[in-house]
Amino acid sequence: MELTQLVEQIRRKKSFLCIGLDVDLKKLPTHLLETKDPVFEFNKAIIDATHHLAVALKPNIAFYEALGIKGWESLKKTIDYINEHYPELFTIADAKRGDIGNTSTMYAKAFFEDLNFDSVTVAPYMGRDSVEPFLAFKDRHTILLSLTSNPGAFDFQTKEYAAKPLYQNVLETSKNYVNSENLMYVIGATKAEYLKDIRAIVPESFLLVPGVGAQGGSLKEVCKYGLNDNVGLLVNSSRGILYASKGKDFAEKAAEKAKDLQLQMASFL
Amino acid sequence: MELTQLVEQIRRKKSFLCIGLDVDLKKLPTHLLETKDPVFEFNKAIIDATHHLAVALKPNIAFYEALGIKGWESLKKTIDYINEHYPELFTIADAKRGDIGNTSTMYAKAFFEDLNFDSVTVAPYMGRDSVEPFLAFKDRHTILLSLTSNPGAFDFQTKEYAAKPLYQNVLETSKNYVNSENLMYVIGATKAEYLKDIRAIVPESFLLVPGVGAQGGSLKEVCKYGLNDNVGLLVNSSRGILYASKGKDFAEKAAEKAKDLQLQMASFL
Repeated sequence: MELTQLVEQIRRKKSFLCIGLDVDLKKLPTHLLETKDPVFEFNKAIIDATHHLAVALKPNIAFYEALGIKGWESLKKTIDYINEHYPELFTIADAKRGDIGNTSTMYAKAFFEDLNFDSVTVAPYMGRDSVEPFLAFKDRHTILLSLTSNPGAFDFQTKEYAAKPLYQNVLETSKNYVNSENLMYVIGATKAEYLKDIRAIVPESFLLVPGVGAQGGSLKEVCKYGLNDNVGLLVNSSRGILYASKGKDFAEKAAEKAKDLQLQMASFL
Repeated sequence: MELTQLVEQIRRKKSFLCIGLDVDLKKLPTHLLETKDPVFEFNKAIIDATHHLAVALKPNIAFYEALGIKGWESLKKTIDYINEHYPELFTIADAKRGDIGNTSTMYAKAFFEDLNFDSVTVAPYMGRDSVEPFLAFKDRHTILLSLTSNPGAFDFQTKEYAAKPLYQNVLETSKNYVNSENLMYVIGATKAEYLKDIRAIVPESFLLVPGVGAQGGSLKEVCKYGLNDNVGLLVNSSRGILYASKGKDFAEKAAEKAKDLQLQMASFL
């Protein structure tokens, strides 16, 4: 997908909501467990109920891998369903991949070619030749971890490094990678106070912001410093939407939660 | 697997060779392409021919993911074959995973429970709560990226950070993680000159060393500073062994290359 299509969709829907599909069998409505593929049935219902409120969907790959081959099949059916029925939705494989050059090329093929995602999240630790193989795919996007939403972010990312915090070095260095126009960044909502510095380094990039909801980040704070002329934000919510109800009304309740967030977002646009 | 079993195996075989199963369909012997599962048939033949020369096997997960569900099936068959026929071999899922706590738990389940690997490689960028969920599994091992073998390692890992290179901070910080006795580290063979400093920080840890062979690292240099009282090294070779021949003799030629490396290793023990 081209970025202009994503921006157009955000303006039309008045939403920059990304829904994280972190599907945990233990949390699914019990009536779905009797179906042949509960994970896919759950995703399908959530997607059908929320597609007009969200602009992006983000399956968290770990939750599918933990189910083995069956999980990989549910993932494939989910992404195929999105691409067939809602091709306007921006899809994110939340996979946190990254390895030496020829191996990163294989991961890029897995997510961009075999599964046909619009984007994938990538860890920066291994540097340039671990990221550029992803960037080489036209109209596909690489979302690099910069400042994550979890407590462990303080172990390395925020510490001083060459007179700057490491996460700022990741932003500055990656701007010089070949095809860096295909880069976006993960910035945790729980670190909203850092967004002013971040926007000084990457004023135009899209930021994928997890951590609103279960992790405690504030949408208002994120918007205050994070919005740019193209909106430039995708704010993710997973558990807060997916598990709003464990009954037969789970999709309806999920849509209500998504609508709440969409309305808040509309007020900032 | 307990570490004492790994060390005993190394002493008995006079080898600390790890064979990387980076299986690329384009490089397989052509006669295998007619079989139902060429990737598994290739792995099976390589494993049967080399199991007495190596102590560890390391499927590179990207190469399987790039083949979609079929690749995931080949991976499952490969690990099951190893665990059934050669349970003494230490198995490494080279996956470079790492995410916020509940997601890392899912990745750990995928590799330690569903696939039953002895160990998995993990990226440190997200810090403590992205690593500890892996460490929580008894007699399973987490191999943390510290100083990788690729050129991109110089982007962040070797740069000064809190008055030390970042990779040293990763070693020092991770030593304090809960269950850090289950930690090993990836140290690229192309960075052998750094091993003296590394051994000063983690004298007892096992190091997984890729980069001998195709990437140009020297086994002699690695051994000079890397060996400890328990050997403490697993040296990986992938392409140099797997693709020694494209003919029907591919497994025999792979065993010859493995034997060459094993004999060199024996001379350092």
